[in-house]
Amino acid sequence: MKKTFDALSRALPHIQDLHAYVPGEQPQGEGWVKLNTNENPYPPSPKVGEAIAGEVQNLRKYPEPVSAKLRAAIGERFGLAQAKVIIGNGSDNLLDLITRCFVSDPGAGHTVPSYSLYPVVAGMSGQDLIDLDFDRSMRLDIEALAATQAKVFFLTNPNAPTGVAFPIAQIEAALQAIDGLLVVDEAYVDFGGESAASLLNDYGNLVVVRTFSKSYALAGMRVGFALASASIIGMLDRVRDAYNLDCVAQAAALAAFEDVEYFERQRQKVMATREATRTQLDAYGWFTYPSATNFLFTEPKNAAGESNAEVAASLFEHLKSQRVLVRYFPSHPLTCAFIRVSIGTDAEMKAFLTVVESWLNNA
Amino acid sequence: MKKTFDALSRALPHIQDLHAYVPGEQPQGEGWVKLNTNENPYPPSPKVGEAIAGEVQNLRKYPEPVSAKLRAAIGERFGLAQAKVIIGNGSDNLLDLITRCFVSDPGAGHTVPSYSLYPVVAGMSGQDLIDLDFDRSMRLDIEALAATQAKVFFLTNPNAPTGVAFPIAQIEAALQAIDGLLVVDEAYVDFGGESAASLLNDYGNLVVVRTFSKSYALAGMRVGFALASASIIGMLDRVRDAYNLDCVAQAAALAAFEDVEYFERQRQKVMATREATRTQLDAYGWFTYPSATNFLFTEPKNAAGESNAEVAASLFEHLKSQRVLVRYFPSHPLTCAFIRVSIGTDAEMKAFLTVVESWLNNA
Repeated sequence: MKKTFDALSRALPHIQDLHAYVPGEQPQGEGWVKLNTNENPYPPSPKVGEAIAGEVQNLRKYPEPVSAKLRAAIGERFGLAQAKVIIGNGSDNLLDLITRCFVSDPGAGHTVPSYSLYPVVAGMSGQDLIDLDFDRSMRLDIEALAATQAKVFFLTNPNAPTGVAFPIAQIEAALQAIDGLLVVDEAYVDFGGESAASLLNDYGNLVVVRTFSKSYALAGMRVGFALASASIIGMLDRVRDAYNLDCVAQAAALAAFEDVEYFERQRQKVMATREATRTQLDAYGWFTYPSATNFLFTEPKNAAGESNAEVAASLFEHLKSQRVLVRYFPSHPLTCAFIRVSIGTDAEMKAFLTVVESWLNNA
Repeated sequence: MKKTFDALSRALPHIQDLHAYVPGEQPQGEGWVKLNTNENPYPPSPKVGEAIAGEVQNLRKYPEPVSAKLRAAIGERFGLAQAKVIIGNGSDNLLDLITRCFVSDPGAGHTVPSYSLYPVVAGMSGQDLIDLDFDRSMRLDIEALAATQAKVFFLTNPNAPTGVAFPIAQIEAALQAIDGLLVVDEAYVDFGGESAASLLNDYGNLVVVRTFSKSYALAGMRVGFALASASIIGMLDRVRDAYNLDCVAQAAALAAFEDVEYFERQRQKVMATREATRTQLDAYGWFTYPSATNFLFTEPKNAAGESNAEVAASLFEHLKSQRVLVRYFPSHPLTCAFIRVSIGTDAEMKAFLTVVESWLNNA
């Protein structure tokens, strides 16, 4: 080699220290019951396939840059002007834009536990991330939240990985208490949470972030949106890649969004399956947080009635050995005795429970 | 409103100063001859439509996060390991990742004129952009390039908006002369340029960036790729959104990339149309830079034989009034007397030339 370049030492210091986000495992091969990444067990609206096929003829041209039709449709549904809506290449894209625009010293804030992307997004911009620790009650401490003085506070509501929803009155109290921006990440809200969108007209320091990945069954398509004041959206548009959404994704999301009947039916099915599964976990005597999401965060008990990290790890491994994949978060005291189980079809949940019972019987 | 938030004053200082990229105009309504954004006049390979249809069933699941199949196929074509390839949500995404990883004081560099996204990408990261001014010869001054001491230098080869290709020996000389990274943006290389990819094994400070938007006719799909050392690609992967490419885009790009015969036929057609158009511009006595791209940068002369900014603006406006859209860059002395004309179909170029002649005859 005539010239070398040591990328690590040449990278910016905060990039040298950065740990990339680790996506949930996508198992190869057939026969897996995949309950680890909170995907929708049902396909998106059949209108999505039609919409996608209709875009093939447009591929040679640049996409419409601002996703105007999608912004307008979303704005109309929420009673907001199009100028108060922005579309992202997944909601992750929007979290990054918010960070790039508004996070400076002392940094961004988040609750622990919550979505593990927040540290990565903050780290990519060289910003600190301030932890707000939950206790086992998973109650939100508004005073402590405000005391972080975070320029941007990321609050997942309903929360992940617990599934717990915070009441809208608490969101409003947080908005009153803080000086910075509150980003309410409502990835799971369609499964039983209460949206903060109704507060947008009163609180200029609120950003509501949504995704098409879960309730609209479009995880593979990468579309999210945010609602906020026109001045906040305007800033985010400055740092948005001018063509951040391809024409196919725009059309797919619009078709899914407009098929309200299908959307309603599927989310009701997921919630019904969740409650049926929960009833079964209750019957085992396991503690499970009340879930307003498409997953359950449950603390397994083994046959001896013990709950701890070893028990949870044992169940996780046993499930995996039987090709049932759930999520296990071993690295935090509040999560290490739990497993997170995405809600699949009734048949998938039955398969999950059958393996759980084989574990209970063999333990 | 119970609480206000002034987004402009709350944004980071460099974001307050940022001017967003202005995409080329996408005219509404029918009947336009659209020669303003260097789109391919032909559709992508018919295999793209099939590949897209095949992905509809996968939409509910997260996409494969690293676009591994596409990396492998591209690596194989270039004789590079998969670890030396990264896929972006458009090449713009990759330019941003490079900037976020490697640009610090004194900033990034670019030639003037070149791609107008570079100032935006640098500005989004709060970095300065150092200008390397061309003169009318459009020759690359390697010594001046090295003297910028830019941490990352963006070089569009073939250049835009001129269409001029720099010989590979000059790229190698630049790689030898500089201390930082040279990013060779080869968006147009398939239309007659010489790729710097052959230098990757010798120069660790080289990044080659490509796009599927032009030669593969997938502007609407947002896919680009970069080739570099495994250590550089590893750093870019750290700041890449974990799911930056949706499953449909991955499949579409792979299908287009593998249909080599179709690709070859279409690019030859574009180059033939370009040369035929150029011959006609030469016949008008206009100066046109030699083009290794899918556009021509030409200095129109009016009937009186004059070339200047007013003449170019007059032609641009006349074309637009006849629903022929080309690009005009009024803000720089080296571009203001020119228009940039994307290569369309033979019929579109005939329509363009017919309107040019009506302008010449009425001037």
